[in-house]
Amino acid sequence: MEPKALLFDVFGTVVDWRSSVLAELDAFFAPRGVERDWGQFILDWRAMYQPAMAAVREGRREFVLLDVLHRENLLELLERYEIGALGEAEIWHLTTAWHRLDPWTDSSEGLARLKALAPVAALSNGNIALMVNLSRHGGLVWDAILGAEIARAYKPDPAVYLRAATALGVLPEECMMVAAHNDDLRAARALEMGTAFVLRPSEYWQI
Amino acid sequence: MEPKALLFDVFGTVVDWRSSVLAELDAFFAPRGVERDWGQFILDWRAMYQPAMAAVREGRREFVLLDVLHRENLLELLERYEIGALGEAEIWHLTTAWHRLDPWTDSSEGLARLKALAPVAALSNGNIALMVNLSRHGGLVWDAILGAEIARAYKPDPAVYLRAATALGVLPEECMMVAAHNDDLRAARALEMGTAFVLRPSEYWQI
Repeated sequence: MEPKALLFDVFGTVVDWRSSVLAELDAFFAPRGVERDWGQFILDWRAMYQPAMAAVREGRREFVLLDVLHRENLLELLERYEIGALGEAEIWHLTTAWHRLDPWTDSSEGLARLKALAPVAALSNGNIALMVNLSRHGGLVWDAILGAEIARAYKPDPAVYLRAATALGVLPEECMMVAAHNDDLRAARALEMGTAFVLRPSEYWQI
Repeated sequence: MEPKALLFDVFGTVVDWRSSVLAELDAFFAPRGVERDWGQFILDWRAMYQPAMAAVREGRREFVLLDVLHRENLLELLERYEIGALGEAEIWHLTTAWHRLDPWTDSSEGLARLKALAPVAALSNGNIALMVNLSRHGGLVWDAILGAEIARAYKPDPAVYLRAATALGVLPEECMMVAAHNDDLRAARALEMGTAFVLRPSEYWQI
């Protein structure tokens, strides 16, 4: 069956967060003479992502945008890595490294080709401003940016997938979820969505 | 000051709703041998738009999507014009005439050129599915589709404009509202947004 809408995971599936954030950290700290293991720093930052969202998913915390979670986790990491004396503008610049992630080399053209066939929407845990900036940075075109912010919930909460289908005026079973992560696809499949797995060999959380 | 985001009204500003819906009504009813004054029918349909939204604005009714309001008003008009015996699929086809509005001739290229300068978002009372379909139909590209559905309110309720600015991560005064209707611009200006008036001589509600 032809899907009536394609819903795309973004971090890891469409953009290469790891090398992009690593490059941002290097570029920011090298001229300041701060040396740390940035490869580990970025893995630590990413590792704090799921627990931060879990607080929202489990109802222990009101929904807040991913920018807020990224910033909180960054502040904790800066302390842990004993990096002090950053101003608010610098902290925001580092937080929004996630707004400037480079796409994988096939993403821009691939999305444009798929968009000619069916509506293509971003279904990310990233907030709308993050997705808009990242898409402008990487030349990514969408029919709509859906995802966590409009659902006020984080994947794999079913609400995020269902809200996207409703927004597009289609049934869940008319959608295809596209991701490089099986947990995302599993959640979509449980709602009767079709699924497409994208292999990204250097995506760390490829499972 | 350069705006950090451009927010576009759509009906009348970017697309020509009147001639498009008129063509849809003609194409649908002519082969069925139903003759009415479709020019008046479409004006009546449009005239029911503000009162229907006012019920939501004034808190007399929970927010519902514009598709729902369009359908309810259509059913009332079909009765008033003594047109019966339409099935659910036909009623939905006519309701979604608003998903297939043709753009004004300069809209597609104009939006693409502006999008190169700053993020451009649709700020319409139309729901997301309507805007996605209409944009695919007319070759309109946006950085994001914002507006009534994500604010759960209808313009000129300030919530709609403010929600859009928040979604884009900018302040109201960093936005420019673009519309062919002064009431829309007036509401944006009251929130310190910049405004741009687009003259559309054949837009009926041009004021």
